[in-house]
Amino acid sequence: MKQKELHIISTGNQTPQAFCEIARLIQNDVSYFHIREKSFTAKEFYDTVMLLVEGGISLSKIILNDRVDVACVTGVSGVQLAYHSLKASLVKKSFPNLRIGSSVHSVEELTSAQNEGADYVFFGHIYPTTSKPGLPGRGVKELRIITEVSKVPVIAIGGINPSHVKEIIDAGASGIALMSGVLEANNPVKMVKEYASKL
Amino acid sequence: MKQKELHIISTGNQTPQAFCEIARLIQNDVSYFHIREKSFTAKEFYDTVMLLVEGGISLSKIILNDRVDVACVTGVSGVQLAYHSLKASLVKKSFPNLRIGSSVHSVEELTSAQNEGADYVFFGHIYPTTSKPGLPGRGVKELRIITEVSKVPVIAIGGINPSHVKEIIDAGASGIALMSGVLEANNPVKMVKEYASKL
Repeated sequence: MKQKELHIISTGNQTPQAFCEIARLIQNDVSYFHIREKSFTAKEFYDTVMLLVEGGISLSKIILNDRVDVACVTGVSGVQLAYHSLKASLVKKSFPNLRIGSSVHSVEELTSAQNEGADYVFFGHIYPTTSKPGLPGRGVKELRIITEVSKVPVIAIGGINPSHVKEIIDAGASGIALMSGVLEANNPVKMVKEYASKL
Repeated sequence: MKQKELHIISTGNQTPQAFCEIARLIQNDVSYFHIREKSFTAKEFYDTVMLLVEGGISLSKIILNDRVDVACVTGVSGVQLAYHSLKASLVKKSFPNLRIGSSVHSVEELTSAQNEGADYVFFGHIYPTTSKPGLPGRGVKELRIITEVSKVPVIAIGGINPSHVKEIIDAGASGIALMSGVLEANNPVKMVKEYASKL
């Protein structure tokens, strides 16, 4: 069975230095690090990639949110596209080497992302999470519907505790994405190992 | 003698529709239209390029601020890079077909921009302008110093009235860049023709 993926996404609450320091410590247990800082300029994205690389993290493990140009010049693995980003189909055509992720919340959005050329999708949020206050999670039943329809890997995101990992994988997900659960944990190294041991 | 360039830069105060409508009317007198909207997402840049193209404006006349990726996928002429953008040298290497502009304010910045690979520079602001309130203009004497040192075309920007055009060109500039002076004029068509007639 193919190894499940563990994605770590920057929270927007930490400095690049703090994020990179944690990333350096946990890199062996992590498949991909996403730089997802909505206020970042191109220069800040670039500088953060350089910081990660200085910390020994492989470019093949780095994914940037939205900034296809910075992804191209740095040679990172891929981009995660948002609603306000360039369409996946346009990115795919001009940058065929980038791995493209899209975030989906329904079968319709999944189908659309696949048709646009997404290489994987995030689906969530699965459980209630402080980053989406007051909204109920979509749950593992809906996750299963998505994974059954999907032709590309589905990464589950949102409020995932280590105790959830088994049911997520049982529902057909190809991996999990974590933010504050690891990055703001008292002991990120221990915490990421706990998740990784269940994947 | 080579025709001098006339650049029109979006103001940040108009809707894409309003900007594109004016652009459509004045395109024959304009060398380049810059989409310089600091709050724009990639999607908004893309949509504005499409609006300009629908208005009959050639991609070869369109320059985007900062977003190299959107410039690449749309096939516009070039990008204007800011301090917070990717460095010109990085852009040049990955996107050799894009015309790259940098903004400079001194001989040191000019030299640096040239070394980085800028294809042209903006120098300003030449005259006092409402977009830089309280700051005196750098003036045509300083412009002349820049144009004498520069190996790339220097486009003058900032507070330029039609009556200034002769002394700007006499100081060695390769063209002028205008924002509200045309886009917020009562009659943009008449105004741009007045500038163009003096170039």
